[in-house]
Parts: sequence; structure tokens; C-alpha cells
Amino acid sequence: MKAMVLFSGGLDSTTCLALAIQRFGADHVIPLSIYYGQKHTKELEAARQVLTHYKIEGLEIDLTKMFSFSNCSLLQHSDEQIPEQSYEEQLKNSNGSPVTTYVPFRNGLFLSAAACIALSKDCSYIYYGAHRDDAAGNAYPDCSSSFHDAMSTAIYEGSGKALQLIAPFVGMTKADVVQIGLSLHVPYELTWSCYEGNEKACGKCGTCRDRIQAFLKNNYTDPILYDAQ
Amino acid sequence: MKAMVLFSGGLDSTTCLALAIQRFGADHVIPLSIYYGQKHTKELEAARQVLTHYKIEGLEIDLTKMFSFSNCSLLQHSDEQIPEQSYEEQLKNSNGSPVTTYVPFRNGLFLSAAACIALSKDCSYIYYGAHRDDAAGNAYPDCSSSFHDAMSTAIYEGSGKALQLIAPFVGMTKADVVQIGLSLHVPYELTWSCYEGNEKACGKCGTCRDRIQAFLKNNYTDPILYDAQ
Repeated sequence: MKAMVLFSGGLDSTTCLALAIQRFGADHVIPLSIYYGQKHTKELEAARQVLTHYKIEGLEIDLTKMFSFSNCSLLQHSDEQIPEQSYEEQLKNSNGSPVTTYVPFRNGLFLSAAACIALSKDCSYIYYGAHRDDAAGNAYPDCSSSFHDAMSTAIYEGSGKALQLIAPFVGMTKADVVQIGLSLHVPYELTWSCYEGNEKACGKCGTCRDRIQAFLKNNYTDPILYDAQ
Repeated sequence: MKAMVLFSGGLDSTTCLALAIQRFGADHVIPLSIYYGQKHTKELEAARQVLTHYKIEGLEIDLTKMFSFSNCSLLQHSDEQIPEQSYEEQLKNSNGSPVTTYVPFRNGLFLSAAACIALSKDCSYIYYGAHRDDAAGNAYPDCSSSFHDAMSTAIYEGSGKALQLIAPFVGMTKADVVQIGLSLHVPYELTWSCYEGNEKACGKCGTCRDRIQAFLKNNYTDPILYDAQ
């Protein structure tokens, strides 16, 4: 049995990768990293370092062109600023819309691309690290359990029942993810979550704030360096 | 209200395009054509001619790399032969697997890519031309109504309820599709369905056979030229 893991080099997907390696063995896991025109490549560099740590090879693909019409603030060509607020604060002003760092249907595209490649590589599973905190308040609708359930059925039915989608953290908080990761000795010092691409993580964007809190809830200090906290 | 239409230049998607134009008006329809490494580009050339007929512009994207690991017989790099049999005959020997011209999770990937772009282009709908005959016997599982229903929910939920997926022919036969197309005066003489890329359609591959039959059931002769019939 082989599993493909959607792997960005961030906290959630690195924990997901560690879990898949524990379940299937490193020789049966294929990490897939996707560049999509982010403002920086720090995450992909982190992904490569994590793979070196686990001594496995991954695949990298480029889907930048799919988002060339989007003005999402995470994208290199966008003139939008990345908000320096928690997701909760951002959602107060969003009128029920996703946050401005929502990349249109990104997870749907990434999972579909993973499904195409996973079928060609004889994988039976796709793993990805969506969790409850990212879906809260419609911040990232493509991290919700309703999206996951539907996408899971779509991949199973559309592949002729050859491929199953697993989101092991979909009902959990980010703090739960960190708890699992700590027990699996995930090399969090190698991961990168910050939306900015500076030398140190900014500590101010939504994902930095969430990450810091997730470690604190585990009575643990995030091992990466921050500019502000 | 704007609609994106997954548009290959074949019979089904051209009929779907005509239906969307009738419903939304040509100014509110964005056709999306996708090259994915087929053995030939006849379909895309046909797509361009159909767009000239309707006097609308479309978008073209290239997803070839997503299928670089697949040995599907439709792909340029594949050494597999395209079967000269009807789908029914092919399925007798497939042990419940999809036919060899099934491109792994192609419709899932195409619809997800369409969703990314449709959201950036403020479309409310995505239309595509899947129908019952292609799904029969698990030939193309990503044309089935179970796939459609799940993918439809995935796109709706994953887009923050901003986008709906419509497959107007999903419960219909190809003959029904042709019947609708004839009433909409679809320029079928400009379309291309054949899996081979010769000057004339081969008349022998699964899709040629289906197409010829669909016209005959409407007491109509397919207006394109065939090598053999």
C-alpha cells in the first residue's frame, strides 16, 4: 500500500507526512510539493529540508498559471497586503467571505492534481493536513469537513474506487496537530508556515499567530525564530 | 451571472457550450480549453473554430505535466495503442476497471482548475458535458453521476458557496445530447471527437463509434468525414 502526501513544508503537512510515514513506512510514501506562485519559496525550501531529514524523495510540480487571474494576497503578482491579524479578527470584517489569504479552490486543485499523479504511481491513499481551525468561520472553506467529505467521495468515485482521501486532522485543532507531531518527533525547527518570506517568521500574520498559540497550548515553545511575537 | 464551460471542441462539450450561451448569453460565457498531452491537437483546433463560429474568446491552459507519469493510451508519450472497439466490447475484458483511454482523474483535475479560474473571473457556474453513456460500466468513472454529485458539493463547499457545478447531460445518453444540440443548431461539422489525429476521423475508436450511433439514433448523419464506418 502506497500513500501520496500533499506536503508544503508547513507545520500541518509535515505532521501529516510524519503520520503517513509511521503508518506506511518511508518507502511507501510519496510527498508531493506544489509551487503555485507564492510571494516566496521558503515553504518549498523547508519541504526539501524535511525530506532530507526523513531521507525520502518527493515530487514537485508548478501550478502557478492556474492562479494567474487571482489577486489573492499570498500570490507574487498580487498588490494586496497580507493582513497582520489573527483569522478571527480578519473574519469580523469579511462579511462571511473567506479571508484574503484564501487561494481560490487551492486545496481542490492540489488534491485533484495529487489524485492524477497518485493513480499513475499506484497509490491507494492521498493524505493532507487540513484541520478544524483553518476552516473555522469560513476562513478557508477548502479546509472544512464538508469540503473534505465531498472531495473524498469525488476522488473515490472518479478514480473507479481505486483511491481514498484521508484528512487525519480534519476534526482537530492546530494544537491537537502539534500534540501528535511532538509525539512523532516531527522536526518542527525545519518547517516554515509564515506567509511572508523574510529570514525569520513575522509572528504577525494569521498563520504565525495560530502556530505560536498551538505550541503554547502544548506548553511548548515553537522552535523556529520570529521577528516579533 | 457568468458561467465557465469546460470546452474541448468535442461533441459533448460543444453542445454544452451552446446550451450555456443560450442560458447566459455569449458575453457571459467563458470557455476553458485544456491541453493535457493528447496524441494530437485536433480537438483544440476544433475548439478554436467553434469559438470563431460563436464569436467568443476562450481561455487555454496546459496541464500536460500532471499526466507525465500516466501510460494512458490517449497520451502522446504512451506506447499503448488506442483500442478499435466500442466501449462495451472493451469493458468485457477490463475486469471492472476503467477503459485504457481513461485519463487518471482527468475530469476532477479539469473541474478543479476551472473552479480556481472561475472564482478569479467572478463566474457563478461551471458547466461540463459529462453524460450517462461515458459513465456506463465504469468506462469513465469521472463521468458518473456519483462523481458529479460529490464534485459538485466539493466545489460549492470549497469555494465558500460561491460556485456551482452543472452537468446538464449527466443523466442523458449521447443521442439525447445530439438531439439537444441539433435543436440549438450546434456546428457539429466543426467539432472533433476521434482519439486518433488523422485528417479524417477513424470511425473505429470508442468515441467515433459512439458519436456515429448518437447521430443515427436521431435519424441524422454525422456531418464530419470518416475514414471507415
